[in-house]
Amino acid sequence: MNWWLDACKTPSAEAKQLAEERQLQLTKPTGSLSELENTAVLLASLQDNPRPNVDRPWITIFAADHGVMEENISAYPQAVTRQMLQNFTTGGACISVIAKEYHAKLQVIDCGSVGGAYEYAGVERHCIISGTANFAKQVAMTEAQCIAAMDLGRQSVEDAVAYGASIYVAGEMGIGNTCSASAVACFLLNEPAEQLTGSGTGIREEQLIHKKNVINQALALHQDYVAQDAFKALCAVGGLEIAAMTGAYIRCAQLGLPIVVDGFITTVSALVAVRLNPAVREWMLFGHQSAEYGHRRLLEEFQANPLLKLNLRLGEGSGAGASLGLIKLACSLHNHMATFAEAAVIGEKV
Amino acid sequence: MNWWLDACKTPSAEAKQLAEERQLQLTKPTGSLSELENTAVLLASLQDNPRPNVDRPWITIFAADHGVMEENISAYPQAVTRQMLQNFTTGGACISVIAKEYHAKLQVIDCGSVGGAYEYAGVERHCIISGTANFAKQVAMTEAQCIAAMDLGRQSVEDAVAYGASIYVAGEMGIGNTCSASAVACFLLNEPAEQLTGSGTGIREEQLIHKKNVINQALALHQDYVAQDAFKALCAVGGLEIAAMTGAYIRCAQLGLPIVVDGFITTVSALVAVRLNPAVREWMLFGHQSAEYGHRRLLEEFQANPLLKLNLRLGEGSGAGASLGLIKLACSLHNHMATFAEAAVIGEKV
Repeated sequence: MNWWLDACKTPSAEAKQLAEERQLQLTKPTGSLSELENTAVLLASLQDNPRPNVDRPWITIFAADHGVMEENISAYPQAVTRQMLQNFTTGGACISVIAKEYHAKLQVIDCGSVGGAYEYAGVERHCIISGTANFAKQVAMTEAQCIAAMDLGRQSVEDAVAYGASIYVAGEMGIGNTCSASAVACFLLNEPAEQLTGSGTGIREEQLIHKKNVINQALALHQDYVAQDAFKALCAVGGLEIAAMTGAYIRCAQLGLPIVVDGFITTVSALVAVRLNPAVREWMLFGHQSAEYGHRRLLEEFQANPLLKLNLRLGEGSGAGASLGLIKLACSLHNHMATFAEAAVIGEKV
Repeated sequence: MNWWLDACKTPSAEAKQLAEERQLQLTKPTGSLSELENTAVLLASLQDNPRPNVDRPWITIFAADHGVMEENISAYPQAVTRQMLQNFTTGGACISVIAKEYHAKLQVIDCGSVGGAYEYAGVERHCIISGTANFAKQVAMTEAQCIAAMDLGRQSVEDAVAYGASIYVAGEMGIGNTCSASAVACFLLNEPAEQLTGSGTGIREEQLIHKKNVINQALALHQDYVAQDAFKALCAVGGLEIAAMTGAYIRCAQLGLPIVVDGFITTVSALVAVRLNPAVREWMLFGHQSAEYGHRRLLEEFQANPLLKLNLRLGEGSGAGASLGLIKLACSLHNHMATFAEAAVIGEKV
């Protein structure tokens, strides 16, 4: 019944070995392309293809609103969530430009924004609830609502697989969602808010202290219900888009679609995913290290060394999206560089 | 007579200001694209264009051989320098694949490799000398030879400007050239070899100790001649390709062509360039931080924070080349994201 517990696919040891052997034959000092070599080899194992590619990248943005916005924890007003939905599909948002740059398919899913009915061309509207409840006062989502959100992520990955996607990026939009993500991370890592809360879109120092207080009080409020259960943490203090991304990551691993994890919020979804189903970890590449306080701590939990460290803190899958160019380059180098034999270059050290 | 002392162009303060104002209007939290914003704004000022681009990137590989190879300081044999020249132009080298990926013009200049006459299609052969002299025993280049090499760099930039290049990458090929670059850096930073010498293409520990000894002895041998003069340091222990890149960087700044500096060896050339003509610094972007020991120290001297930190150590301009994709993305975001007004998104904080 809980589909997310189903087994993940196993990466290909054979494709990995063939890719490693090829790297040793390319005209360069052994290991000199380091992270680009590792990326190509990992992708070879995940795509079960000794010549991996990112010819058909797929990006889904999951958007939703947050009841905890009542507590005054964000720099921007809630209306921005819905305004940005339209900006994604009309091409003006950061991730829209990135998707165009790297010829990625961009899917936009509204999991539950606040406001009346609307139709924006290109936005898939699934209003599970019109924003979560305020987790400072009650659980953010019922278990049924949380599962419905995870199902949206599952469906998105099934869409991507049907499209023939070669790699999957999830991004998020939801004013207030760093507050929710921090609270989930605190439950999962058993840390107080101070260790995992940052300034999000750019709140000032006093408001940051207030945000931490809101989170710490919510941790106390929900701790008996959560009782160290990752799914219940998601219900108690998570968001619809955070749950959707958790579902998406798990489904990627089950269907064998490589994932590029983005910044702080997506990494929280990734952490929930691996707590629910640990083998999901094997399917993850990490695109960037965000400037958001707490992301470094989360990345340590994954022992991850992201490709980019550009101090970005925008969300929308922008860091993972930006890394697609490097992942594509890693594949091009792997596939198109000459071997020592082909180029008649001496490959043995003296 | 010394053309490299001529004045550099001044970056445009007006284009910089217009670019900064535009960044504040784009639909994202203020400053959230960080290094990508900085890159677009810097390029706007260098290109004197509030909408910068890298539509016509230019890459020149300068190759040469090194007399200090007699001292057994490299993991690969000297013949590889010339073998790689052919690999660059037939498309099998790392930088060849990168140039194709980013639609860059690739120029290959042999400044003086060891061996008889040859013709490889696409290689511009200028055999100033058939490799430098062994700097462990005598000066590597006469002053006339060093100037001839710098002139090759100057001419390359003039070719790039005539082509309409939007950005310039210099890369190098020369078995043994990390040894030469370390020695130059030691003179310029007044440090012993231990602070600035790494394992290059991958020598073992004993050979690395020997390499440091060779350099320290050369520093002692040449110190009276060099007497803290950057040009003389280049003559004493530099290489033809290192001198050529120095000339190229200076000419870029004089003609107003933005530079992307690559790894350890190119950064040494960049340091000689700014010692000869300090205003060259303003024209430099830094593409990557190399794994080569000593590169971090050099970057500190420039107070530079490179775009990529992927642990690369290949040379050929590969790190700077890899960063072209990100620089291109920075421009695309700057030019194509919607403003708050265009997208009807609230841009004011609450």
